[in-house]
Amino acid sequence: MPELRKDPVSDRWVVISSERGRRPSDFGAVSVAEEGAGVKFCPFCEGNETKTPPEITAWRKPGTTANTPGWDVRIIPNKFPALIIEGEVNRTGIGFFDMMSGIGAHEVIVETPRHNLAIPDMEDSHVEKILWAYKQRLLDLEKDPRFRYILVFKNYGIAAGASLSHPHSQLIATPITPRYVKLELANSRAYFLEKERCIFCDIIRQELGAGVRLVYENEYFVVIAPFASRFPFEVWLLPRRHEHGFQIMPDEERLLLARCLKDILKRLKKTLNDPPYNFVLHTAPNPVPRPGKPDYWGTVQYDFHWHIEIIPRLTKMAGFEWGSGLYINPTSPEEAAKYLREVEI
Amino acid sequence: MPELRKDPVSDRWVVISSERGRRPSDFGAVSVAEEGAGVKFCPFCEGNETKTPPEITAWRKPGTTANTPGWDVRIIPNKFPALIIEGEVNRTGIGFFDMMSGIGAHEVIVETPRHNLAIPDMEDSHVEKILWAYKQRLLDLEKDPRFRYILVFKNYGIAAGASLSHPHSQLIATPITPRYVKLELANSRAYFLEKERCIFCDIIRQELGAGVRLVYENEYFVVIAPFASRFPFEVWLLPRRHEHGFQIMPDEERLLLARCLKDILKRLKKTLNDPPYNFVLHTAPNPVPRPGKPDYWGTVQYDFHWHIEIIPRLTKMAGFEWGSGLYINPTSPEEAAKYLREVEI
Repeated sequence: MPELRKDPVSDRWVVISSERGRRPSDFGAVSVAEEGAGVKFCPFCEGNETKTPPEITAWRKPGTTANTPGWDVRIIPNKFPALIIEGEVNRTGIGFFDMMSGIGAHEVIVETPRHNLAIPDMEDSHVEKILWAYKQRLLDLEKDPRFRYILVFKNYGIAAGASLSHPHSQLIATPITPRYVKLELANSRAYFLEKERCIFCDIIRQELGAGVRLVYENEYFVVIAPFASRFPFEVWLLPRRHEHGFQIMPDEERLLLARCLKDILKRLKKTLNDPPYNFVLHTAPNPVPRPGKPDYWGTVQYDFHWHIEIIPRLTKMAGFEWGSGLYINPTSPEEAAKYLREVEI
Repeated sequence: MPELRKDPVSDRWVVISSERGRRPSDFGAVSVAEEGAGVKFCPFCEGNETKTPPEITAWRKPGTTANTPGWDVRIIPNKFPALIIEGEVNRTGIGFFDMMSGIGAHEVIVETPRHNLAIPDMEDSHVEKILWAYKQRLLDLEKDPRFRYILVFKNYGIAAGASLSHPHSQLIATPITPRYVKLELANSRAYFLEKERCIFCDIIRQELGAGVRLVYENEYFVVIAPFASRFPFEVWLLPRRHEHGFQIMPDEERLLLARCLKDILKRLKKTLNDPPYNFVLHTAPNPVPRPGKPDYWGTVQYDFHWHIEIIPRLTKMAGFEWGSGLYINPTSPEEAAKYLREVEI
């Protein structure tokens, strides 16, 4: 019998239809490894720094100059930005339609100078530098009063929307709070108002107790297959301790986060034959500047809990999902967690 | 300058980023026509009726028997249903998670006995029979008190999620109202409460006046590229007159709807080289049975307006869209409408 399950955070129902019995091997050859093989020129490779827009910041070896070799992680503006950095946010209407100018930031975090080095194969300390880069950009961009939200994400593989194979992540800062973020914030706030507890802390507590959907844990972080997983092998990475924003995470925890992220990406790679995936950092919206309270977070610091959602792209969205927002997932999260826990990495 | 636009129905912001300038030819070879060429056996073809589950109903030539040749449109249960028809809807919880049994209907509407005859090439009167089939199934399934909503949709092409190339649509009846439907209903209700007008009627009025996003109109129906289109060449087909449910459409309008649907699918096929697409019928949720009022629609009959949303699958969903629900569309709806209006069909 299939099951309908509801995600308590997003209020989203999902059909877990595991009669259709999808094991890792049923998803076919989706390996990303060889996609970039034929590419001749890569603007993200070391030595090609002048072929990209000038860098915003970088983790550099002492003594090296911007836009030359010698970096470990490099942040540049996206050459084809979805939103434009210069200008004011003009809000207007056409008849009863609302619109505003497409102001925002769209940046690329080049994760390594090496074309073929993916996160699972990096040193822990290198993954930490990528996380450092995310933090720097969040801290810098959240000061811009035009922006309400900054979304950090990664597309790995063509099927996941990547157009260049060199390891990179991206961020987009937007003048509105995006819809899913708004929904997540509203629902976690409602939960907090009712229970005086963070909904994510409750999820972590329940999942640590149940164990069946737990994939990985270390001292500070936990990885679970969420109860109402939309997609086969969807996983969430959360800090065990309540923390609303990624950017306020203490530096000493970053190495453990790097290990955790590397571990889960390695498990996914091994279990699913190097699948395309997306990951998205869900962090609190930007603090609202108020007179005398420059970094006013409001109640979000109690009711929201940052996390990273990782979605392997194994199935296709079809008409039903588009029309309904109700996902049909052929692999139960309990099965997925078991495969991911037991794989040898 | 890109624009942020808000869809008034769903409250959804969209980035129209037409600097990226995507004309029809920029989307690459996506033609669906040859996908099914190598297939040897098709269970939906005439003569293979015994290879599918027994038919639920069909438009048949007089004197022919169920599950034998002689049909024009044939409705069968999905052989691999996402939800199961037999059983009670049991609602339960695990800790603080909610779930219910996966009861529902999952049916296939085989649109023609001929393997290679797509809607744009059918007779108008045949397309009408497909629409007749949708209506029959909606009227029948909405009587089942276990079901809250019935979603009719079509996946055309592998990239749109179709697993068989023989022309077919599907429907899924669910014991919950799916999330997007709920959102659309809630927002159109709020609009009606404020204005005493249907939000879709207002959209149609504004679009007929503006003209720039209008693709097609006949006496009863109109096709527009919506103001905040999520995807390149997304189009909506709406009845001009206020009507909440597809299933209450008078029979005499059905031929004009058939012509309209055929026309727009032909325009998309011609403009975009036979692209994969999804279409989804957005109709009112099932009437709620009440004592003495067997078909109680509530205020939905005033505030909702059925329509069909058609989405060509030209771009890939990536991490940003997954994480934010904010879509980046490289083709403005005004450009899309112009191409679709001007193409010779």
